[in-house]
Amino acid sequence: MKEQANKILIQGAILDGQATDLLIEDNRISRIAPKIESGVDMRLIDGSHKAIVPGMYNCHTHSAMTYFRGYGDDLNLMDWLEGYIWPVEAHLTPEDVYWGSKLACLEMIRSGTAAFLDMYTFPLSTAQAVEDMGLRAVLSYTLFDRDDPERAALDREQSYVYLEKFKAFSDRITFSIGPHAIYTVSGPQLQFCHRFAEENDVLIHLHLSETEGECRDAMEKYGLSPVRYLHKLGVLSPHLVLAHAVWVDEEEMDLLAKYGCKVVHNPASNLKLASGYQFRYEEMRRRGILIGLGTDGTSSSNNLDMYRAMHLAALMGKAWRKDPTAVTARDIYRTATADGAAIMGIDAGVIAEGKLADLCLVDLKKPEMVPCHNLVSNLVYSASGSAVVDTTIVDGRILMLHGKIEGEDEIIDKAAEVAYKLIAKARQAK
Amino acid sequence: MKEQANKILIQGAILDGQATDLLIEDNRISRIAPKIESGVDMRLIDGSHKAIVPGMYNCHTHSAMTYFRGYGDDLNLMDWLEGYIWPVEAHLTPEDVYWGSKLACLEMIRSGTAAFLDMYTFPLSTAQAVEDMGLRAVLSYTLFDRDDPERAALDREQSYVYLEKFKAFSDRITFSIGPHAIYTVSGPQLQFCHRFAEENDVLIHLHLSETEGECRDAMEKYGLSPVRYLHKLGVLSPHLVLAHAVWVDEEEMDLLAKYGCKVVHNPASNLKLASGYQFRYEEMRRRGILIGLGTDGTSSSNNLDMYRAMHLAALMGKAWRKDPTAVTARDIYRTATADGAAIMGIDAGVIAEGKLADLCLVDLKKPEMVPCHNLVSNLVYSASGSAVVDTTIVDGRILMLHGKIEGEDEIIDKAAEVAYKLIAKARQAK
Repeated sequence: MKEQANKILIQGAILDGQATDLLIEDNRISRIAPKIESGVDMRLIDGSHKAIVPGMYNCHTHSAMTYFRGYGDDLNLMDWLEGYIWPVEAHLTPEDVYWGSKLACLEMIRSGTAAFLDMYTFPLSTAQAVEDMGLRAVLSYTLFDRDDPERAALDREQSYVYLEKFKAFSDRITFSIGPHAIYTVSGPQLQFCHRFAEENDVLIHLHLSETEGECRDAMEKYGLSPVRYLHKLGVLSPHLVLAHAVWVDEEEMDLLAKYGCKVVHNPASNLKLASGYQFRYEEMRRRGILIGLGTDGTSSSNNLDMYRAMHLAALMGKAWRKDPTAVTARDIYRTATADGAAIMGIDAGVIAEGKLADLCLVDLKKPEMVPCHNLVSNLVYSASGSAVVDTTIVDGRILMLHGKIEGEDEIIDKAAEVAYKLIAKARQAK
Repeated sequence: MKEQANKILIQGAILDGQATDLLIEDNRISRIAPKIESGVDMRLIDGSHKAIVPGMYNCHTHSAMTYFRGYGDDLNLMDWLEGYIWPVEAHLTPEDVYWGSKLACLEMIRSGTAAFLDMYTFPLSTAQAVEDMGLRAVLSYTLFDRDDPERAALDREQSYVYLEKFKAFSDRITFSIGPHAIYTVSGPQLQFCHRFAEENDVLIHLHLSETEGECRDAMEKYGLSPVRYLHKLGVLSPHLVLAHAVWVDEEEMDLLAKYGCKVVHNPASNLKLASGYQFRYEEMRRRGILIGLGTDGTSSSNNLDMYRAMHLAALMGKAWRKDPTAVTARDIYRTATADGAAIMGIDAGVIAEGKLADLCLVDLKKPEMVPCHNLVSNLVYSASGSAVVDTTIVDGRILMLHGKIEGEDEIIDKAAEVAYKLIAKARQAK
């Protein structure tokens, strides 16, 4: 990416229904006013017929799994993992993860996402991809001991190693600790993660209560439902971000609220894997639980477009309750923007002076954006990010300008090449 | 639209995983071969990095309702109709319907749709819009007597008037008869529609069994569920296209199969209005019922993108059954293409020599299309039509070439102007 001016002036865009100018200085929004005098040191962006909107905050994904988009759909979980995903993942190198993550970043920039919370192998490769692409991310080192004490010890050691290594990256990139799930990580290891998060002030990224089977297994193994099990272990805290939390009862939501835990809803994968369609938005919001939205990885969600995730979440939020007034467009827009940013600890998610400059221009001349009686409704119910996002700015840097991203072709070609090579390797190994 | 050559040669596109050339002569696909010699009389289209796919067949919509996109969301049905839609519809003129339909056509061309089955007021205005925009459509004259014999007589008379008037349009445009629903159209009028359809060989476009309430009301009023009521009236036939049919039981599906009725699934509006999320794909397919897919109108679905409708249908088809193997990408792709075309009586929906030239080029270089392990999976689960469709050809005419549609700006501006004017009129009248 070539050197860019530290001052960017967006001229004549629409914000809250009014035409406005918006000035970015360094990495923050410094001024919003009907008319801002342009200076020779400013890069100018024509905002006419465009709306200024916050970037999206994707609170749960596995970015390098872009390689597995469309590779094994419409299958039962274990047939899919054992027959498709695991044999290919066995061949992944750090460089592969770098290119897979770059492809993911490309798709996110194109669809208007500013930051993502990730969990995958070789997180340093993903960090480098994020660094190079200009996005923000919270990247988790995945712990996965399956009650093996040696693996557990190694994972603990590596957590410290990665924590240190992440300091080499810019402050757009944050480290987190990612115990995979309660059925793959032992209780003492979850307690280690809790202490590690407290000591180092990092997030804990955990899959929880995704399927009915997981809850049944927890009852059998621990005599407790998943959230109660975490409570007994003493690991509920504001650092804890729970991906899914589909199968939770009233008392479990009370516990999550009491300890300030966060929840991330992933409608695409919940539906496609038939894990469950409940979205307890009302019950969680009422208790003050912060709810984020995620796409999950493309192996199960197939795309990383947060606008599509908003659409699914709002639609299903109504359908499963048989109530068209449940979960409004504005509710779901907030989970994808302000609340998602808050979960990741990013001072953004709304367009206001002083906030970090993570924002997009949305093309209001696309037919699906016309008429614009209600911008948020059009964004949630009508738009797909990849079709309507015209310009993406993150941390005050222009990552896409009027649909153009530098180096896009190289990433597309390289990632496709690696994807096909990985499948070929896995087939040979059979 | 300016004069175009009658021969179009698409060079080097991908079809079924292989690079191919495809020749269109007049309005049909005349040849598909790895290399076709170009002639000076041919218009050439570069198909590199593009896949050739059939156009989509949207089997249920109310196209001119684009005006109401985002106007009153997240409401109960009657609050929405009485407080928002009806007061504005009262002011609609034929010219308004023309521009609203043009906006709909624009969105459909952009998202890769070739034809639609419509039901709305002033169908001649919609026919003119379709004629001018180059799409295909089956357009219904809406019958709506509410047990008023004078209105019923007028509707019968008008059905013949419209049948005649539609003969003025090209054969891309077909007339159908559209009794709105069993709660708005009397039994004898439904029997008239049945006779009319038989005599004139046209489709009958009817909303049926959309909500649980509709079924309960039918039981109260007729002592029969909706399909059984139609059976008793003697109006089940291969001409009958039922939009929704969410609330049907096994015996009702037997009846639909026995009489060759068609069913159109509309996932976006079913979910958003919380009408019901059942999609009895398996049970209907097994009986041989032809199933199409629809977006419904943008007042309730907010967009007309059939790729988005495929995504919702496939996801919900799995989720409500708690079975990730239910309704595959290929199943749903067929409902949106070949089976949709068959329902509308259009000799297209697959890419093959001799078929009508309704086809699109899909951009394989968009990040959400990479890698391409399985094109159909990417189309159903990852793509949105408005983001990936590069070129749309209908009836052998190029309607969008590499993202460009002639006259687009004028339609966008005019339709937006009318939309805001209509809302203002409705507010003044309050």
